[in-house]
Amino acid sequence: MVNHRQAFDEIRALIGARLSQGEADRDQHGQSETWHRAPPPDAVAWPETTQEVSAILAICHRHRCPVIAWGTGTSLEGNALATQGGLVLDLIRMNRVLDIRAEDMLAVVQPGVTREALNTDLRATGLFFPIDPGANASLGGMAATRASGTMAVRYGTMRDAVLGLEVVLADGTVIRTGTKAAKSSAGYDLTALMVGSEGTLGIITELTLRLHGQPEAVSAAVCAFDSMQDAVNCVAVTMQSGIPMARIEFMDAVAMRAVNLNSGTDYPEQPHLMIEFNGSPDGVRSNAEAFGEIAADCDGRGFRWASTPEDRTRLWEARHAAYWATLKLRPGATGVVTDVCVPMSELPAAVEAASADMEAAGLMGNIVGHVGDGNFHTLMLVEPGNAQELARAKAAADAMARRALAVGGTVSGEHGIGLGKRALMGEQHGAAWPLMGQIKRVLDPHGILNPGKLVPDHEDASEPAGSAPG
Amino acid sequence: MVNHRQAFDEIRALIGARLSQGEADRDQHGQSETWHRAPPPDAVAWPETTQEVSAILAICHRHRCPVIAWGTGTSLEGNALATQGGLVLDLIRMNRVLDIRAEDMLAVVQPGVTREALNTDLRATGLFFPIDPGANASLGGMAATRASGTMAVRYGTMRDAVLGLEVVLADGTVIRTGTKAAKSSAGYDLTALMVGSEGTLGIITELTLRLHGQPEAVSAAVCAFDSMQDAVNCVAVTMQSGIPMARIEFMDAVAMRAVNLNSGTDYPEQPHLMIEFNGSPDGVRSNAEAFGEIAADCDGRGFRWASTPEDRTRLWEARHAAYWATLKLRPGATGVVTDVCVPMSELPAAVEAASADMEAAGLMGNIVGHVGDGNFHTLMLVEPGNAQELARAKAAADAMARRALAVGGTVSGEHGIGLGKRALMGEQHGAAWPLMGQIKRVLDPHGILNPGKLVPDHEDASEPAGSAPG
Repeated sequence: MVNHRQAFDEIRALIGARLSQGEADRDQHGQSETWHRAPPPDAVAWPETTQEVSAILAICHRHRCPVIAWGTGTSLEGNALATQGGLVLDLIRMNRVLDIRAEDMLAVVQPGVTREALNTDLRATGLFFPIDPGANASLGGMAATRASGTMAVRYGTMRDAVLGLEVVLADGTVIRTGTKAAKSSAGYDLTALMVGSEGTLGIITELTLRLHGQPEAVSAAVCAFDSMQDAVNCVAVTMQSGIPMARIEFMDAVAMRAVNLNSGTDYPEQPHLMIEFNGSPDGVRSNAEAFGEIAADCDGRGFRWASTPEDRTRLWEARHAAYWATLKLRPGATGVVTDVCVPMSELPAAVEAASADMEAAGLMGNIVGHVGDGNFHTLMLVEPGNAQELARAKAAADAMARRALAVGGTVSGEHGIGLGKRALMGEQHGAAWPLMGQIKRVLDPHGILNPGKLVPDHEDASEPAGSAPG
Repeated sequence: MVNHRQAFDEIRALIGARLSQGEADRDQHGQSETWHRAPPPDAVAWPETTQEVSAILAICHRHRCPVIAWGTGTSLEGNALATQGGLVLDLIRMNRVLDIRAEDMLAVVQPGVTREALNTDLRATGLFFPIDPGANASLGGMAATRASGTMAVRYGTMRDAVLGLEVVLADGTVIRTGTKAAKSSAGYDLTALMVGSEGTLGIITELTLRLHGQPEAVSAAVCAFDSMQDAVNCVAVTMQSGIPMARIEFMDAVAMRAVNLNSGTDYPEQPHLMIEFNGSPDGVRSNAEAFGEIAADCDGRGFRWASTPEDRTRLWEARHAAYWATLKLRPGATGVVTDVCVPMSELPAAVEAASADMEAAGLMGNIVGHVGDGNFHTLMLVEPGNAQELARAKAAADAMARRALAVGGTVSGEHGIGLGKRALMGEQHGAAWPLMGQIKRVLDPHGILNPGKLVPDHEDASEPAGSAPG
């Protein structure tokens, strides 16, 4: 590993004690929520302004020092691990909501603002920000991984939520992408290029986010099913019928047991759908009725309605906690999480096959998902240090991913690529994968931004842009 | 102008008479709907397969022959003019709907399929494709310019409608972007990079498009206002109130006069809003009532409801014809069209200032717009060959564009950049504009794809990616 002393000396001259090479700080910024492991970074910096980020990147660019952006450290694919050492740029001090323009339904925020903090600030405006991955993640990190969550079925993902960005490129150049208008056809969509680029193309230092009106009426419910197939079929029929769902989440029996243990709830330990409707009071009522008929046809039963805000909060907190709750089922276990997304017609078969994969691998785990998008996760619980179990889990995960590809789906619905999915990028994208690498090299010629992630290693990429005319 | 005889000989060996250098074919593919003019291309080719497009591009890449993709030739900013000669690739023979997957709410089409042809094919499915620029444009062209139309306020633009693409790169390499799943976080969003790239990064040979369910109930109306300000204020209040509009279009008195003359309608020659609600019957009713109250507060009057499908078709055909109808008000005139989009709170001032600009320029014209998005157009009628009038129109257009930029808007809401907006790209994007040029050079190293458009000329671009650390 290269020693980046010169770079760190220059950065220290700039931000003083906000650069740390202490072991505790480095360890804290070298951990992952899941099974992915890497040595800690060589240093951690806490910039407070775009100018500081720009100056730090210019230094690192000059000294070829890797830079990895860090938000809340809650990504699930090892997305922010410093696999080649270097500097972690912790953006959590850039946590100001800079502007809320209620009449334009947008907010301008720094990258360290978390989704919950933004929604707290929005409370009085009648607006809210709907993207909700499980963790209370930073908005910069959510943009970087193109996160979504339970409400994507209604409001889209970070792809749809981000109107514009301020981004610092590898050499310190600051650019702005997008506008504050609702749409634009003025040139390449650099906003969309940055969203989901996982810190490999630039460091996001400001976001302009689309907000939505708080609905007049909201109603949520859980509904139990005898079998996973019944529940997932109910989702497919519901989505194909066009009933506007605000949320439609699947949780299997294991996840429900975990939630009961963790949240003190007493749901039947069966497959469930958790659903939410929003809109006008009349609309909510008629949509709920229409869903109820479909659910009954699929042998759904035991509807429990959560009509007060408190009941709904409890319900969705339970759902959001499913990941950590399930981890506790096997104390000390590390998680291997999958994240495929498939066309709706392929969802029932994909979930069934994933369940069989887990069973064949002999691993405890759950299946949950944002099934209205065709997106579901398995969480497999692996004993730390048990290489054989880990290998079985990874083989099962690969099988699920490859089946998703075979039916026109994706290996990652919302968690990004990180370390966990990089080996599958070539299979998913073919000739478009080396092209991604070539685009990265334009923006980051020395490869300092989150190296070893997302694009092929430099020597893997074919040169130039696709050499094999079709 | 270079002679591309060798390239054309090779292409003729490949596709025979589907390459033409005849004057009529060249002239037909060298025209623009608006005031933009350029010499015709040197040749026109009509490929029928992706393989042919790939082979033709490989030839042109080798011989440095410009290639300009062509759909229906209805773009408004000279987007497809062969300003540097070369080959126009007319994709209209690639006009098959390849797959309709109703249960996944998507269609796979070739680029020459028009939006109306797709909707005809979809009629029996209960689904439809909502993006509707004025012309019956090709879907490939609509993706290339990131088109939208009257329903973007409800369904988004081509940015939202395109799930995936097959694209032939400059050297003939065929890539696939996106998936058939509802979302993906697997790497750079090359789909979004291609949508709106106006044929400068690759040639779109296949599109996977998101479809929507035909709403259960639809109701449309026109509503007259005494002043433009009242009408535009009504739009701003409506959008801020969160009433879900399927369409909300503004047309000024001139546009209404033109529509009456063209379509035989008898609307009052006053500013109007044309609106549409869709959803459940109850939802349509309550949304229409809520809008009616806001309109009454803004002195809207004389609602005329169009409840039968035939009445609605007549209404929206009249709206779509407004451009050509207004051109006829000054026989023989050429149009200078503007296309700014601003944040909603800035819309009333922007429309008022645009109206003053046109008056100061002494030009007849109209103002219409997809105002629910903050997007509006002026169409100024210029006497052909009258350089002074053209200069006044262009000065007014520039003033509107610069005011949009000053309030966080964009110089192009939906028409793209073409020739008309290129001079404003640096002002809108700053350091991000040369970056677009660098990305283009990766995908098209010899600059053969629609040269002279969208990105800076090669010698203008700073080297490498932004040289001035912020």
